Amino acid sequence: MKNLDKLRKKIDLIDDKILELLKNRSKIALDIGNLKSKNSKNSNLFRPERQMKILSRLFLNKNSLFSEQDILSFWKEIFFHQTNLQGGIEFLISETLKKSEKKIIFDAFGYNIVIKTYKSLDKAFLKIKKNKNKLLILPYPDKVKRDYWWINKNFKDLFIISVIPFLKKKNSTPKLVVVSKDKPILEGNNSFIYLSQISIKDKSLKKIHQLKSNYLYASANLLNYNELKFLGAYPDFKLKKNNEKN
Amino acid sequence: MKNLDKLRKKIDLIDDKILELLKNRSKIALDIGNLKSKNSKNSNLFRPERQMKILSRLFLNKNSLFSEQDILSFWKEIFFHQTNLQGGIEFLISETLKKSEKKIIFDAFGYNIVIKTYKSLDKAFLKIKKNKNKLLILPYPDKVKRDYWWINKNFKDLFIISVIPFLKKKNSTPKLVVVSKDKPILEGNNSFIYLSQISIKDKSLKKIHQLKSNYLYASANLLNYNELKFLGAYPDFKLKKNNEKN
Repeated sequence: MKNLDKLRKKIDLIDDKILELLKNRSKIALDIGNLKSKNSKNSNLFRPERQMKILSRLFLNKNSLFSEQDILSFWKEIFFHQTNLQGGIEFLISETLKKSEKKIIFDAFGYNIVIKTYKSLDKAFLKIKKNKNKLLILPYPDKVKRDYWWINKNFKDLFIISVIPFLKKKNSTPKLVVVSKDKPILEGNNSFIYLSQISIKDKSLKKIHQLKSNYLYASANLLNYNELKFLGAYPDFKLKKNNEKN
Repeated sequence: MKNLDKLRKKIDLIDDKILELLKNRSKIALDIGNLKSKNSKNSNLFRPERQMKILSRLFLNKNSLFSEQDILSFWKEIFFHQTNLQGGIEFLISETLKKSEKKIIFDAFGYNIVIKTYKSLDKAFLKIKKNKNKLLILPYPDKVKRDYWWINKNFKDLFIISVIPFLKKKNSTPKLVVVSKDKPILEGNNSFIYLSQISIKDKSLKKIHQLKSNYLYASANLLNYNELKFLGAYPDFKLKKNNEKN
């Protein structure tokens, strides 16, 4: 098995290089963490739009042996490691969250994340208002009756900063949203959730849910739309850019 | 935040290099898979001694920012990806396995592995005898009464090829063993489990368990010891080399 030995030596060389790069990456991540903590505006550790930018770029270089899902699996570990180096984040979830929904969270952020469960949504909202690096996971607003958390008065001043799973299957909606006290960063390829008191007919808006006079819409780049109150942004690299502004 | 942008560009460059290396590694892994399937002797996909060799070498280059556990977390994904490219393996576990034991399996092999549960241990033994890429997970033999699987007549001709968790804490024993129809590969830093019909006093042997006239020992490099029936090898990079042969 001389050939096998040769191939294995090649793999050893590659592994050494990968580890060297990972170590360098950690050093830089630590520098970024230090820079962030000097500048309080940027002290939050979870930056989904930054992660999605990284993934979007890497996805352009996927191939048949290394799919989008493979890239996500590896970089999930990298992101987890980096966030921990910078201090770590904590996730708050409802104690009634389903097993399948927990799996979505683990698949997105890694199986070693810190998770705490809450009984009272009001208290959970107050908790994350006190700490940038506590994040609340809530169900994506949809037609199934849940607790309509988005009309809770304590949701005021909080933001949806991401949806999960990151990789959506065709024609499926996101399952969960990530809520933070931190304002989402608005970039070209982000998608947003809008709250409106009136029903709006616009092809670039997708109605998510309606509750009495509250309409929830999802769309990309419609920030200047007068009738819409902007609730939060989430990075969505699957969504095409849409620069229409009615 | 010019500095932040600079650091992020550095990270982008590193990420691109890592992805390129991972893609090359996948190509080589596929070549290895093809080579293995040509040579039936080497067609099994799970080679713990090879994985441990890779990890042991990488561990020498760990640092304060990138620990052994970090290396393991990352390469676990690499090994899972590689095994899948080559065809994939399936794990058989008892339906009575504890939640904490399942976590040990996931932490060792990844959270997306294929796991099937069995009711009858006899049938499970027969199943893995038919397929090199089905592996059976059983409790590590210890003083707590379990099913004493190692004296089951169907265990004949099967081998312990690994123990988990891979990273043992000081003074703790392994929790589970991996059983395969495949003969373990004997290398310098492997550790072995021996079955004997008599009690043996030897400092280099560590008694694991005793059941009537069956004594189970663990040791490194005692293959020529006359009184011991060799049960299986497992890679143990924590164990010092021991070349004593009484």
